[in-house]
Amino acid sequence: MIKVGVNGYGVIGKRVAYAVSRQDDMQLIGIAKQSPDYKAKLARRRGISVYSSGNPDAFKGSEVKASGTLRDLLGSVDIIVDTTPEGVGEENKKIYEEAGVKAIWQGGEDHSVAGLSFNAYVNYSSAIGARYSRVVSCNTTGLVRTLFPLQKEFGIKSASAVLVRRGADPSETKKGPINALEVDKHLPSHHGADVNTLMPSLKISTVAIKASTTLMHLHAITVDLEKEASTEDVLRAFSQYRRIALVSIKEGISSTAQVMDIARELGRGDGDMYEIAVWKEMTMDAKRLQYFQAVHQEADVVPENIDAIRAMCGIEKDPQRSIDKTDANLHIGEYK
Amino acid sequence: MIKVGVNGYGVIGKRVAYAVSRQDDMQLIGIAKQSPDYKAKLARRRGISVYSSGNPDAFKGSEVKASGTLRDLLGSVDIIVDTTPEGVGEENKKIYEEAGVKAIWQGGEDHSVAGLSFNAYVNYSSAIGARYSRVVSCNTTGLVRTLFPLQKEFGIKSASAVLVRRGADPSETKKGPINALEVDKHLPSHHGADVNTLMPSLKISTVAIKASTTLMHLHAITVDLEKEASTEDVLRAFSQYRRIALVSIKEGISSTAQVMDIARELGRGDGDMYEIAVWKEMTMDAKRLQYFQAVHQEADVVPENIDAIRAMCGIEKDPQRSIDKTDANLHIGEYK
Amino acid sequence: MIKVGVNGYGVIGKRVAYAVSRQDDMQLIGIAKQSPDYKAKLARRRGISVYSSGNPDAFKGSEVKASGTLRDLLGSVDIIVDTTPEGVGEENKKIYEEAGVKAIWQGGEDHSVAGLSFNAYVNYSSAIGARYSRVVSCNTTGLVRTLFPLQKEFGIKSASAVLVRRGADPSETKKGPINALEVDKHLPSHHGADVNTLMPSLKISTVAIKASTTLMHLHAITVDLEKEASTEDVLRAFSQYRRIALVSIKEGISSTAQVMDIARELGRGDGDMYEIAVWKEMTMDAKRLQYFQAVHQEADVVPENIDAIRAMCGIEKDPQRSIDKTDANLHIGEYK
Amino acid sequence: MIKVGVNGYGVIGKRVAYAVSRQDDMQLIGIAKQSPDYKAKLARRRGISVYSSGNPDAFKGSEVKASGTLRDLLGSVDIIVDTTPEGVGEENKKIYEEAGVKAIWQGGEDHSVAGLSFNAYVNYSSAIGARYSRVVSCNTTGLVRTLFPLQKEFGIKSASAVLVRRGADPSETKKGPINALEVDKHLPSHHGADVNTLMPSLKISTVAIKASTTLMHLHAITVDLEKEASTEDVLRAFSQYRRIALVSIKEGISSTAQVMDIARELGRGDGDMYEIAVWKEMTMDAKRLQYFQAVHQEADVVPENIDAIRAMCGIEKDPQRSIDKTDANLHIGEYK
Repeated sequence: MIKVGVNGYGVIGKRVAYAVSRQDDMQLIGIAKQSPDYKAKLARRRGISVYSSGNPDAFKGSEVKASGTLRDLLGSVDIIVDTTPEGVGEENKKIYEEAGVKAIWQGGEDHSVAGLSFNAYVNYSSAIGARYSRVVSCNTTGLVRTLFPLQKEFGIKSASAVLVRRGADPSETKKGPINALEVDKHLPSHHGADVNTLMPSLKISTVAIKASTTLMHLHAITVDLEKEASTEDVLRAFSQYRRIALVSIKEGISSTAQVMDIARELGRGDGDMYEIAVWKEMTMDAKRLQYFQAVHQEADVVPENIDAIRAMCGIEKDPQRSIDKTDANLHIGEYK
Repeated sequence: MIKVGVNGYGVIGKRVAYAVSRQDDMQLIGIAKQSPDYKAKLARRRGISVYSSGNPDAFKGSEVKASGTLRDLLGSVDIIVDTTPEGVGEENKKIYEEAGVKAIWQGGEDHSVAGLSFNAYVNYSSAIGARYSRVVSCNTTGLVRTLFPLQKEFGIKSASAVLVRRGADPSETKKGPINALEVDKHLPSHHGADVNTLMPSLKISTVAIKASTTLMHLHAITVDLEKEASTEDVLRAFSQYRRIALVSIKEGISSTAQVMDIARELGRGDGDMYEIAVWKEMTMDAKRLQYFQAVHQEADVVPENIDAIRAMCGIEKDPQRSIDKTDANLHIGEYK
Repeated sequence: MIKVGVNGYGVIGKRVAYAVSRQDDMQLIGIAKQSPDYKAKLARRRGISVYSSGNPDAFKGSEVKASGTLRDLLGSVDIIVDTTPEGVGEENKKIYEEAGVKAIWQGGEDHSVAGLSFNAYVNYSSAIGARYSRVVSCNTTGLVRTLFPLQKEFGIKSASAVLVRRGADPSETKKGPINALEVDKHLPSHHGADVNTLMPSLKISTVAIKASTTLMHLHAITVDLEKEASTEDVLRAFSQYRRIALVSIKEGISSTAQVMDIARELGRGDGDMYEIAVWKEMTMDAKRLQYFQAVHQEADVVPENIDAIRAMCGIEKDPQRSIDKTDANLHIGEYK
Repeated sequence: MIKVGVNGYGVIGKRVAYAVSRQDDMQLIGIAKQSPDYKAKLARRRGISVYSSGNPDAFKGSEVKASGTLRDLLGSVDIIVDTTPEGVGEENKKIYEEAGVKAIWQGGEDHSVAGLSFNAYVNYSSAIGARYSRVVSCNTTGLVRTLFPLQKEFGIKSASAVLVRRGADPSETKKGPINALEVDKHLPSHHGADVNTLMPSLKISTVAIKASTTLMHLHAITVDLEKEASTEDVLRAFSQYRRIALVSIKEGISSTAQVMDIARELGRGDGDMYEIAVWKEMTMDAKRLQYFQAVHQEADVVPENIDAIRAMCGIEKDPQRSIDKTDANLHIGEYK
């Protein structure tokens, strides 16, 4: 049983904690957070031990009692999943080193923090036994999930994507935009380079726009394939991968709203969509493929974190067996 | 075992169907809907029989097979819960009469359709054995849930409420407003009169505004009480009712976004908030109470439908025992 | 000719500068801002002198040349209108004192900064010759504009208001909420007390909610009048005041979107709505009046600033003559 | 003096009417609309004659008097600009034919209605003397405005664009989405084919997404050029065209919100942005150009309608002279 801790209990952290608790080969020792707010209360309600990662006085007088400090948590685990806000994760590295624990960071941190970026489909084996790794961001995970199969089956000459990003997560109320479309100041955006940390030889260019929505990112992707293929061939290739869910306008799914409506009914924790939703409506014109996909920014990286734990701790050497186990435990691939 | 059918499988219908299936004294025979879209597919995935309520040809060639027509469904049930769109429910009355089944309508229909408006706290007993009833709308249910306890404990001289309504449900993308606040053309709005169908002697006035949000309605309520009371007294009164959840800005809950964030973690179907969320931050000034409450328009009426079924079919004469049973089966009242 | 400077050139500052430039008894010497962004460029395009209020190096290499520093501007004006962000205005007081100029702050600052809160209808005369004043906030100005006539004509026993506030201004993209309704952590909100800085004897209570819109605030107001009156009497009273515009659902105006649509066509700078839009659809029940009003947060305080300048500099002792002049120059009251 | 009528007085109609009234070689005879709402009232306020285009009884009892029916208007004009809702324009063709007037439709109608699609930069000369034409839609106009210069200067091998469309216009409150990103059911979208009605040999593919915003469309465009060029070359080419406005993140313009903020200050009617806003931040990689542009859906087609009137009525044979005149009268090209 791998002993796992989660540092940070926001959008990603609470989902990783939940997902860990659903696996039979790992044990959630506890989570660390700075303040005893309603999220801490809900964690306690789920029977999770809550450690204090900031000033321990913050928990004084609270109905949620801290089980100790972050250092206490680190002393009890084999591996820590860092889901703290962007930039904070890097600062934590020293503490993890001192505690002698393995660590996983999220995509908000640079590749260099861990030296190894991770996606279960692409490079599970490289992470076996690794001390540190970084699960790439929700958008990058989304891109890799569909580009990797395409590259494997048909070869990719070049790819480009426009990422229309959600402005805030559903539980955040401070961020906008309320009524605007905002261009990413980086052109091309960093996502293409981030895909290259996993698929280094892929020629890819991305641009990003921020929109007034909280639900999901939406990607419009254009790929020039090496081989001739029909859209049926592409759909057949995608359907081999459980972490891709094929959806259709014909069935009434024309927006991220309906995709999340499905997710709410799949009976998973938090109404999550671990899969990348790809629309069956796609076009192929002389080896140029165009398709849309929706990425649930709160959830798609969660199974990747589980697989990364398994690889790094060496309890499962076979990528597919880890993926199968994760998928079964999280009911991934059930929407057909 | 009461045999229950649900006509309509939208936002309310699918939740009532789910809630029925969680009770041990009733059985979901099936649901009826017009077209075999992704919602029909998800119903089948849950093992629910889907009947055709419109042109049966609509299901031809679909992967979802219809188990029969609406009339077939009506022939197999004791009671039908009508969750069709506003105005359609009234047209269905004749069919229900012919089929000789009991029927429950939702708040989109007029009181006169059923002749009996229902809320479990207020008038469960009046519905015992009734052939028809109507569960009042989400907003009215929300108002009654907190006004009824106040009236009972402290007496109410007069009440007024401003209802800031969500513009669309999360799965609807055609409705606005995108960037505006819209006044209800009825001033006062109909909600006050609708409360009076349940609490006829209450002096109440309501106005409504539509906002650009999909999550919940938010009510700002002012009540002039008969008796002296402190806000602590009010909180104590509210805490006696499981269908009221007390939340606090101090715990980080300052908007409908955080209330729904809690709901997503309570592990219920669809991330629902059956309870009315009332903020502990309230004011009392010379018997005038002011408070905020948030109403999950998709869910708060669901337990009321379950209780209405039980009352109308006469399987439970004691209001509190029905409420306790419904609440236990739906995990209502678990957020403390 | 009063020499006027404006410190800050955001939403309010640029409008005050524009309004000053439309008056024949005052002269805009210049505006001060921290950085030479597109707003500075647009100011220059309008022929306005731009002074540097922060680090003067910020303007180095920019196509917009600074005409000097804030101190230079202060050396050339009789009065400065401070429209810097909330809290910054207070820090500027010392500089204004040293420069020996009169100063006007906006509603983001506390009453105590100036010691005198201002609204042209209510207390113009008190500001004659004053060194400092503070124009109350957009919401408070909105409340006072309609409550003052009501008090004068009919007497007010008590008033209460629910303010549904816009989450961000149209040109702001960083602020939310995107999809939520947020309760104001202060209950009652500070707006009632702020009205009392102008109408000290008025019994008023306010609560506030933040919504996902950029256009206007929307107020639902309930007033218990002293005297009997019909809604026609109220409309007649309101129609005496140019800074109130009466609108009607019957004419197709049911939301803040249509109010701003009108404003865009009135041919004023920036599509502004200086008037408070009050819906003709209102109710009166036994001396209890209920009505809706929309407040353009970017514009309603602008004419108040102009009148405050005139009063403080003593160039017009008669309130009504100042108001008439401001209104004529800004085309206020033209929507009938 | 060309006598012009405008049928329809919504978002486009009122702007075309205003723009016509700003030209010295044409005269606005009147506008036709169905109901005497606030827009009719504002038209009258501007001194515009309002004709009844629906049931004339609709104007009975209204404070806006109808100057006659649509047929009366048609009897007094040389040319009618049809700005009625999508699909209605086509039905009007017969009436225009009977009246013997020239007619211009908007992009909501099919190319076949007029047989001639129009953009002043591309094919002004083809429209000289034409009886019918159709100004292409706001999105198509936006694409053509920048693709035409690129084709002319550098040649285009192929182009692709992702159009993120606004969900509703600022004055519309019924349309969504409130919180979702919606994919266009046509993949590719019709915009590419619509560009081909003007630039038939251009290889172009477009996809479209609908977002929760009212301000502008945002296009992410990728163009493979024939010739080598730097981004400076492209900016130099664009800067030759007044109907393109170059904006920059460096100056604080990173979203459609700031573009519209500029528009509000340019002192035009309605705060309009007639120009296509193109971000100076663009990339060129081996003849592949990527750039963002924002399209004000309410305004960009307005100058095109003016030029189409001039061409069709034969009062100006030289394209550039008409464009110069239109631009001068509407203050186009003034933001540098």
